Order: sequence, then structure tokens, then C-alpha cells
Amino acid sequence: MREDRGLGNLSIEQQAWQALEESIVYYQGQPVGTIAALDPEIAALNYDQCFIRDFISSALLFLMQGRPEIVRNFLEITLKLQPKTGQLDCSKPSRGLMPASFKIASFNGQEYIKADFGDHAIGRVAPADACLWWVILLRAYVIATQDTELVEREDFQEGIRLVLELCLVTRFDMYPMVLVPDAASMIDRRMGLYGHPLDIQSLFYGALKASLELLTPIQSNQFMIRAVKNRLDPLLKQLREHYWLDPERLNVIYRFQVEEYGEEALNQFNIYSDSIPFYRLANWLPEAGGFLAGNLGPSQLDCRFFSLGNLMAIILSLTTEQQSHKILNLIELRWSDLVGQMPMKLCYPALENSDWQIVTGADPKNRPWSYHNGGSWPVLLWMLTAAAKKMGRGELAHHAIAVAERRLVQDQWAEYYDGPDGRLIGKEARKYQTWTITGYLLAKELIKNPDHLKLMTFVEGMREER
Amino acid sequence: MREDRGLGNLSIEQQAWQALEESIVYYQGQPVGTIAALDPEIAALNYDQCFIRDFISSALLFLMQGRPEIVRNFLEITLKLQPKTGQLDCSKPSRGLMPASFKIASFNGQEYIKADFGDHAIGRVAPADACLWWVILLRAYVIATQDTELVEREDFQEGIRLVLELCLVTRFDMYPMVLVPDAASMIDRRMGLYGHPLDIQSLFYGALKASLELLTPIQSNQFMIRAVKNRLDPLLKQLREHYWLDPERLNVIYRFQVEEYGEEALNQFNIYSDSIPFYRLANWLPEAGGFLAGNLGPSQLDCRFFSLGNLMAIILSLTTEQQSHKILNLIELRWSDLVGQMPMKLCYPALENSDWQIVTGADPKNRPWSYHNGGSWPVLLWMLTAAAKKMGRGELAHHAIAVAERRLVQDQWAEYYDGPDGRLIGKEARKYQTWTITGYLLAKELIKNPDHLKLMTFVEGMREER
Repeated sequence: MREDRGLGNLSIEQQAWQALEESIVYYQGQPVGTIAALDPEIAALNYDQCFIRDFISSALLFLMQGRPEIVRNFLEITLKLQPKTGQLDCSKPSRGLMPASFKIASFNGQEYIKADFGDHAIGRVAPADACLWWVILLRAYVIATQDTELVEREDFQEGIRLVLELCLVTRFDMYPMVLVPDAASMIDRRMGLYGHPLDIQSLFYGALKASLELLTPIQSNQFMIRAVKNRLDPLLKQLREHYWLDPERLNVIYRFQVEEYGEEALNQFNIYSDSIPFYRLANWLPEAGGFLAGNLGPSQLDCRFFSLGNLMAIILSLTTEQQSHKILNLIELRWSDLVGQMPMKLCYPALENSDWQIVTGADPKNRPWSYHNGGSWPVLLWMLTAAAKKMGRGELAHHAIAVAERRLVQDQWAEYYDGPDGRLIGKEARKYQTWTITGYLLAKELIKNPDHLKLMTFVEGMREER
Repeated sequence: MREDRGLGNLSIEQQAWQALEESIVYYQGQPVGTIAALDPEIAALNYDQCFIRDFISSALLFLMQGRPEIVRNFLEITLKLQPKTGQLDCSKPSRGLMPASFKIASFNGQEYIKADFGDHAIGRVAPADACLWWVILLRAYVIATQDTELVEREDFQEGIRLVLELCLVTRFDMYPMVLVPDAASMIDRRMGLYGHPLDIQSLFYGALKASLELLTPIQSNQFMIRAVKNRLDPLLKQLREHYWLDPERLNVIYRFQVEEYGEEALNQFNIYSDSIPFYRLANWLPEAGGFLAGNLGPSQLDCRFFSLGNLMAIILSLTTEQQSHKILNLIELRWSDLVGQMPMKLCYPALENSDWQIVTGADPKNRPWSYHNGGSWPVLLWMLTAAAKKMGRGELAHHAIAVAERRLVQDQWAEYYDGPDGRLIGKEARKYQTWTITGYLLAKELIKNPDHLKLMTFVEGMREER
């Protein structure tokens, strides 16, 4: 128990900073990342790894603290792990992919880095979000340090190009969204997120925007810069129009014609009314609220609310100013559903009964209102805070932080919470989960100094806000 | 009504040949394909197109008849439609993709070809199977004509390479199977076939095998030839081991451990027992039977029986000799389920109730036991015949053909049949559907001259049979 170590007299924030310090991973004496969890009570399984997506909130904190070396080391190490060849060999990770995680192992007294691209993961899922976060983080590093030398190095330029190539290469569909298998993101278990899940599309948009700032205008980048520019507009239009749900849009979808053939179809994805829970949504969606749907594909419009995708959409100015406010209105007006006793729900509502059985493959870890399936994740606190501050609605963030502070230390920085109102510590939650700690600290830092928002937002987004 | 045209006195086969002749599509005076349906009673919608997948059975017949020109013209035209550039532009079809269909239109008295890559289709689904069928058909053309000049042309070699590149480029997963969105095959509406559906994997295997015979050993092909060879073994192993279901394997899966972490996991895909209908399967699967499951992914093993994937697996020797016999045993012992009053079910069983609601998005065209969702498709008759003849079990084919003959002419070559036993003409079925006609004719030809099997089978497959 950490309390035994004499942390009891420290403030919540001091305890959090100390725990973050202890989570730092070293390689050949240099800090290179943070470990997923330092729970002294449960076997590590793969919680002894540094996950790319988990490290993002640690990294932003280090950048705000003026400690960019660890972020730089992390970016360099992960760049070296990114495969540069082997595009046609299925037994190797795809060219451009970033690993889900890495760990420092030692053999014969020599330290070495062991990456996991999903080949060790439960269910063998490869991450699609890691490479997108990597580009977004690289931009934050440049903004924080004004160090353009790193990003202009040919190996970094190549790394960015390879990420973009992996995502932009068209496949067996003709949508502007990126196509991924189920479970390829923070939600790394089957949850109906195959195809074009919002969480990935938001990050995809952010990575595209970031890459336009990061790619130098050298000849070998010109083709990719054009490709990114070509993709941004249709992607933005698709997300703002076809993913968007508010009472007005719900009315349009409710009266959709179906089986429309040809280019002029209004109901482009041939959504059937019977697949949409209209009455529940009409009850639940406040007149002033709206959100981006969780997924879109042929005859599929997933009306679950996913926090990561919606909050990052606000932060990245993927949604219009009005849409961003509507998302925040929804969170405010449906506070007990979306925030409850712990900010905040990873998705809402949970899949229950046959939905759970069929969509998750009866996954007991994701049973209704647990873990990814309607569980609450403190790491999301920083995204909620950033989104609220960006839109000039800091009171939402203050309120959420106050809710979280009641529990985080007492519950030893649990990874996630269960139950419809987030009152239960997650059934299999690790304690001292690093991104729970950093999610809280990052929220506090963003409140103290909203100028840090610039690490994640884009200029036109800032302009929209004023 | 065709009967009015004086066809009444002709034999079933004569009527079928005549209907096939009438379905031929001409471009600048040359035969280039066959139209999907010639139903005089219903508006054409997109049934006035030549679909790549529909044309395969027509093409095989023309090759058997010694009329390869139409097949050659078709191959040349579709090759020209295949995009050769534009790899990063989402608004254009992907490089290497083949269209779902094309039609001959005219403008100012000039004929031109209009391709559909899914951009006009209901729900905007692009085909993944078309390019795979194209390679398989190209090989059949070479076998039938011994004309190697065509395939050795640089444009054909490039076309093959581009198909392979599209399929082999690894993405956000690390499986040997090819990753596709839902609805990317003959089942072109949402049906839970995202990820790695069997129907596509069988054709993928066939296209890989075929390409090894078709690619010339020129320098520019060497890399691709190695890539294909590297993929074949793991793909074969994955399909024969992890897709396979028989009573013995069912016992293994029933007792799977879950949440296994690391490379040595037995339950590689982390399948939960509760997601598998064990008791129904244990009842239904005869001791001597087995089949390849419909889909495989993280926490997902789709236990539906898909005929196209299973029959093509036999024909292409994707399954072992023993597995092929077990599939045919299953068809024989579950005849009333899988063949019933019309050969044969596209998939079995139908998704019903909440399965239908959730997996298809409440698609009324695919309501239980209709169309793709448990409907019966006469075109499958030729695949059943080919698979049965290949394994020396012609009696199954004879029986199935006799069943079909009782209905086909009387029902005017309906596209598909509905109901658990296939007794109802499909609710929205077109009449005079070309691949219903050719499915029947092809079955008859394969019975008359089993040597024609060589157009689709591979040598080691033939060896297995003797």
C-alpha cells in the first residue's frame, strides 16, 4: 500500500506527481516512457509495458513541465520500432505501424527493447491508434520545445510519411474514413468497432492536420502533402454531416428513404430506421445537445456516445463551434449518465443482453457497465477538461475534477470504474494506473494554465473559440 | 412471358442456352459479358449491368463451349477498368480494385463503358471479390485456350500484380487472411461479414494459387511471387486449423481457456464459449461432418455455414481431402437444411430476431430465411456439382440437379428462393437471372464432362481425388 510509504501527508497532486515519477521507464540510463501500472497487488501481465496511447498524457505533462527529453527519447525509440519495410509480409507488422507498447527487457545483462504490435496481445489485435497518437504527440513536442531540428530529420519525415501511407492507402472501400478491424484502439476488445469507428476517425483527422505542419516542403514529401490535403475536406464533411446526431438530424434519419440506388442517394449508407433506437434517443438527446455517432458503414449507424472521439473532435476542431458546444451541452445535461460518480464514461450506453452477447462475443470483461462497455475511465478527465476549456466552459471541467478528487486517491488511482454511475472500482482494474494519475494531473495543469491547450489544438480552433 | 415466344417445346437445357445467348452484352459489335437479369416484368435497376462475379459462371460455360473470345474480351475490358494509379485518393477506386459491374451506355450515338466500383451501389459498398474472381477466371481462360500470349502481356502481368498488391499489403492486423469491410462480396449487404469472412478467404486463396501459375518469372514479378509464396502456407494453416469446425474441434473450443496472453495462446482469438451455440451445433453437426466457419477475428468465431466459401474450398483444395469429404458429408446428412427444395442455401442458419436486428442493421431484404440471410441460390448448383465431382461423389450433384430441375423453368430462372426449405420464390427475386441459368447449365456440363473441372481445380487437388 502506497500510504505506508508516508505519502499520506502529501496533497493529492503531490502524491500524483510522485507516482508519475515512479512510473518512468529507463533504457540505458535514459528516461524513455512510463509504465502502464505500478499495482503492487496484482501480477503485471502486460501492465509492465509502456503503451503508446497511455504515454500520451504522461508526455503532455512532461512537455508542460519543461522536461521534453523523455518525450524526445520516447519518440526516437518508437520511431525505430516502426517497421520501414515488409509491406507484403503478413507475419511482420505492417510498414508504418507503431507498436501498441514496448518494454525494456534484459538478456545477458544487456538491456533491449521488446515491442508488441498486437502479436502478444489477447485476441492478437494490432493497434491503429498508436501511429495516429504518435504524429499528434510529435507536433505537441515541436510546439512545446520549438525544436524543429528533430522533426526535420529525414528519419522523422520518413516515419510521418509511412504512417500516412498506411492510413491513406485506399482499400476495399471508397470512404474518406480510415478502415480498421474491430478492437484496434483504446477499446482493444471486440465491441462493434470494425469499419470506421469514431474514436479512430477523430485521431486520424488530428494526425492528418498535424502532419501538414510537420512535413517539410521537400520534394519527397510533395505527393503525400497533396494526398493529405485531398483527404481532409471529404473526411471533415463526412464526420460533420453523416456522423452527426442531434434532434434535428434524428428527424431526418427517422424519415430516410431506403434502398436508394445511384450517386444522388440521401441515405448514402442505406440505414434502416428499425436499427436506430429512435424513442430512446429522442428521450435522451436534449434539444440543445448533439454528438458524433460511434460508427458508420453500410446499413450501420452506431448511436452510442464515445467520449474519446467526441472530446478529441472538440479539441482538434473537427466539429464546428456549434457542434462542439452541443456536445458539451449534452455532457452537462446528461451529467449523471456520462459523468456520474467518476469522469467519465468511455461509451454510453452499455451494450446489454443480446447486444452484448452478439456484438462483444459474450466478453465477460466487457459485460454491461464494465470496462470498455459503459465503464468510466479517469484518463478521460484531461480530454473533458481540454474540450471544456477550449470552448470557454471551464465550469464543466472544475465540476468533473471535483467529482474525481473525491475518489482517486482513496481508490489508489484505479484504472477504471464500473456500474451505470461509475460507483464501483473496476472489477479487474489495476491500481496506480499511470494514465489515471496523468489524466488527473493534466486536467489540473490545463486549468492552471490554459495556454497549454495549444499543444493539442489547431489555430483555427482557437480562433473559433474567441 | 418467355413461354409465349415458343420455347415451350424446347428441353430445359435448350431453353437455358437460348436465354444465356440473349443475355450477352455487346460493345462495339463484340460480345463482352452477360447481363445480370433479363426480367421483362420488373424495372432493371442495376440488373442491366454485367457483374464480374455473375459473369464467372457464364464465362466458364463459354470456355467449355469453345467460345473463348467473349471471355477474352471481358478480361481485356475489365483490365482496362482497373485503376492503375490513385492509391492515396479516397474518392477514386483503389489501385488494383476491379469494379463490381459495368454497363454499356451510349452518348451522342457513341457507346461507352460505365463501371461501378460500389460508388453507385446501395450502401456504397465496394467489391473485394471481383478482383479475386478475375484472377481465377484468367487462369481458367489460359487452361481452356492454352493461349499464354494474353496473360503474358505486360498489361495483364501488371493487372495481376496490382490485385495481389491490393490484397497482400498488410494493414492494421497481422493475420494471413485478407481484411475486408462488411458486404464486400456476393453478400453485398451488411451481414456480419467484416474482417475475415470465409467466402472472401477462399477466393483469396484461389487467386494466390492462380497467380503463381500466371505470373511470368520476369524481374518485376519476383518480389510479388515471393510475397505470394510467403502468404500461402500461413493462410492455408489458418483456414484449415482455426476456421475448421467438426465434433472433435467443437470439443476443443468448448473447453478453451480465455484471456491467454502471449504468443503461445491456444485460444489465439480469445473466443468465449458463451458466444458459440454449442448445443445447437452439437445437435446439428453429424459425427462424420464438418465445415469451415464463416468468419474469424478477435473474440469472434462465426459458426454459420457459408456455401460459397466451403464449396470453393473443396474445389480449390483449400481444405484437406478429409475435410472436403466431411463438408460433403454434412451437406448429404443435413440435406433438408442445406439443399431442401432448391440447391442451395447461401448461408445456414438464418440470423433471426435480435441477431438479425443487430447484425444486419434490421435489413428487411435480408429478413430471416430470405435473400442472403438463409435464402437459396441456384447459382451455387455449379459449385456443389464441381465440389462433389472433384471428390468422386457425383451422386450428390445428380440429386441436387434433379431437385433444381423440378422448379427452375417453371419459376422462370428465379434469382433466389426464400424460406427455411427454399420453397418460396425470392420476395424480390428477378426472373431470368443469368447466373441461375448458367449455374444450372454449368452443373450439367460438369456432369457430362468432368474433365472441365480442370478450369477451376489445382493439380494437387486432382491428385488427392484419385
